[in-house]
Amino acid sequence: MIQEEGPPPRRYFDWAATAIPHALRETDSRFGNFGNPSSPHLEGRRAREYLEDARTRSALVLGVPPRTIYFTSGATESNAIVLHSRLLNRGNGRILYSAAEHPSIRENCRVLEGLGKPVTVIPVDGNGGVPPGMLSGILEKHRDARFAAIMAVNNETGAVTDMTAIRDVLGKREGPPVHLHCDITQAVGRVPVDLSLWDVDSAALSAHKLGGPRGAGILYLRKPVPVLYSGGGQEGGIRPGTENTEGAQALASLLELRASSAAVLKEYGKAVRRWNVLLDALRSMDRCFLIPQDRANGKVPAEPLCTEPFSPYIVQAAFSGIPGEVMVRALDDLGFAVSTGSACSSSSPERPVLAAMGVAPSRILEGIRISQGWLTTVEDIEALAGAIREVLKFL
Amino acid sequence: MIQEEGPPPRRYFDWAATAIPHALRETDSRFGNFGNPSSPHLEGRRAREYLEDARTRSALVLGVPPRTIYFTSGATESNAIVLHSRLLNRGNGRILYSAAEHPSIRENCRVLEGLGKPVTVIPVDGNGGVPPGMLSGILEKHRDARFAAIMAVNNETGAVTDMTAIRDVLGKREGPPVHLHCDITQAVGRVPVDLSLWDVDSAALSAHKLGGPRGAGILYLRKPVPVLYSGGGQEGGIRPGTENTEGAQALASLLELRASSAAVLKEYGKAVRRWNVLLDALRSMDRCFLIPQDRANGKVPAEPLCTEPFSPYIVQAAFSGIPGEVMVRALDDLGFAVSTGSACSSSSPERPVLAAMGVAPSRILEGIRISQGWLTTVEDIEALAGAIREVLKFL
Repeated sequence: MIQEEGPPPRRYFDWAATAIPHALRETDSRFGNFGNPSSPHLEGRRAREYLEDARTRSALVLGVPPRTIYFTSGATESNAIVLHSRLLNRGNGRILYSAAEHPSIRENCRVLEGLGKPVTVIPVDGNGGVPPGMLSGILEKHRDARFAAIMAVNNETGAVTDMTAIRDVLGKREGPPVHLHCDITQAVGRVPVDLSLWDVDSAALSAHKLGGPRGAGILYLRKPVPVLYSGGGQEGGIRPGTENTEGAQALASLLELRASSAAVLKEYGKAVRRWNVLLDALRSMDRCFLIPQDRANGKVPAEPLCTEPFSPYIVQAAFSGIPGEVMVRALDDLGFAVSTGSACSSSSPERPVLAAMGVAPSRILEGIRISQGWLTTVEDIEALAGAIREVLKFL
Repeated sequence: MIQEEGPPPRRYFDWAATAIPHALRETDSRFGNFGNPSSPHLEGRRAREYLEDARTRSALVLGVPPRTIYFTSGATESNAIVLHSRLLNRGNGRILYSAAEHPSIRENCRVLEGLGKPVTVIPVDGNGGVPPGMLSGILEKHRDARFAAIMAVNNETGAVTDMTAIRDVLGKREGPPVHLHCDITQAVGRVPVDLSLWDVDSAALSAHKLGGPRGAGILYLRKPVPVLYSGGGQEGGIRPGTENTEGAQALASLLELRASSAAVLKEYGKAVRRWNVLLDALRSMDRCFLIPQDRANGKVPAEPLCTEPFSPYIVQAAFSGIPGEVMVRALDDLGFAVSTGSACSSSSPERPVLAAMGVAPSRILEGIRISQGWLTTVEDIEALAGAIREVLKFL
């Protein structure tokens, strides 16, 4: 008798690209709060309350005033709004961005450069983070710097940048202030985020990385900036277009669920414990090179400080002699979803972040990114390690 | 015994601001197709198929090739993308836009003007439409015109612009071609739209005006344009950011349901019949002035041509001596949702579209917009007419 086999069960390790959606309690918004928040009638006023409730709840989790929260379609748009506002600040100085930034920072900076704005890249260290010293050096060299985009957690390696130290460097500098923009997409809900302590001027995040819907995100702006894309004046004129009230509500709920200090601390220890299982397994494989190779094996924090140099949600690894794409495909066939770097740059074979970290070109081609989330189990990780070993045997 | 009265039942007449949501069949997307369409693994490929299916279905309804459909967060963003692409076409000539355009066209044109682009307004007629002759005049005067934004249906008066005639004017012009951009937000699903016949170069629409979710829209682009807001290269580089796959699917389903030629023709006759009840009632009121006053009382088309000069979904009316805001509030209290003009400009007391039509300033302040949708009934309209009469008695 031939036993027909079904497809292998799927184990998802690409949470950094998008999270498995969280089943949110069905809200009454679809019918009860469907109005246009700009409309003056009851339906409009209800929708406005619904939207403002989402704003207040989101602000509370992020520890900032509600008026500084602007709902957008996601982090990519949030980043673009802030960057392109520099076009309306003529003569307003140089833009700095770290070599580890997401394409939605990097590519917009290139567009701005093409339009004549002075732009300079801040080098990153071998981990993919921005050491404060690198920033000081750049600031010393470029007295005209007025804007710096530095991400909190690198989306390729998980490297955590010490934003407090970054703020210290900026604070010590004499002369006009430098606007600090922080992409917290891979940080929020994963590692402690403190916009007030970090004293950032703006920040960006996406709902779908928290298990929320697509098409919803936040731009935090300490003070409003002039914006390029204009329209009906919604969101204080910062983000025109009829507001995605349901998306904003879902995002607020997920921030409460995942991104409060308590929620992050509770998950962090579990995530470190699970990730240590993966890191130990990867280190035991002859042909595996962690990127960076000396990635610390985090101790589970006894005190809720969560000060590991890497997010316990992302790891980058290379397997000698096996192109990353081949490894991704082989693991996919075995039922595991991992990726080669950022989904947002998967159309390009280039890995500019790894290159900026000084990773050798041959090694870059072998890199894969493994990222976990709150539904990941130790069993998933052990199965993944087993599958990688199987692939290594045959390739 | 005191009979406690509940609130009056609500009757919604602000479909032009946002439609009552359509209950879509629950799709399996939230869990089955949750992947990031840019990811290489099974989850990513499924999400990609899901997104491309939405693109193909939308394109089929709009009668254009799938590769010309770009999913955005809505018409406001679609308009902004096209307009700001002119910043990357240096020396690429003058931008024209009609005086009746939505704020998402008008305000972006003002930003472009502020950045040094030459911009000229095309006057509108007393209905709020763009007569081809007005466009010819402007084109004659401005040989450097390379772009014209002309909406298909005016969102304040319902005036329909004859896009075929507009195209004829542009086609007859000698010299470099003029890019024709058409905001079809108030047209799609309401009046016949034919992007191929109109020969437009780009078009914009929003899902929520069709009863779909917020945060989803389409930019139709015959040929790709350079874009300002950049990122991970999604949507052919035209609209960066992780794609809102669920929004795109819902939009495709609603286009099929509401915007196919058959669906539009089927609803159009019903909408005209209902609207005639309203127009007759309004005309019978001494203090009511339709805007424009000579608005035709459409005959129900025997043949499916749907060539009325006004959309049978929108009417603008003023009530002598009663500010629009007061009328809106009074009707709201009686259970009717109507608006003063566009929701997207409700924060401003100005009504630039009515002013451009030559409506007297005192009359402009009295204007209200009544808009219907596919759930509106003759009973709703009769109740509305009754409520207006009641308000007129007391104010």
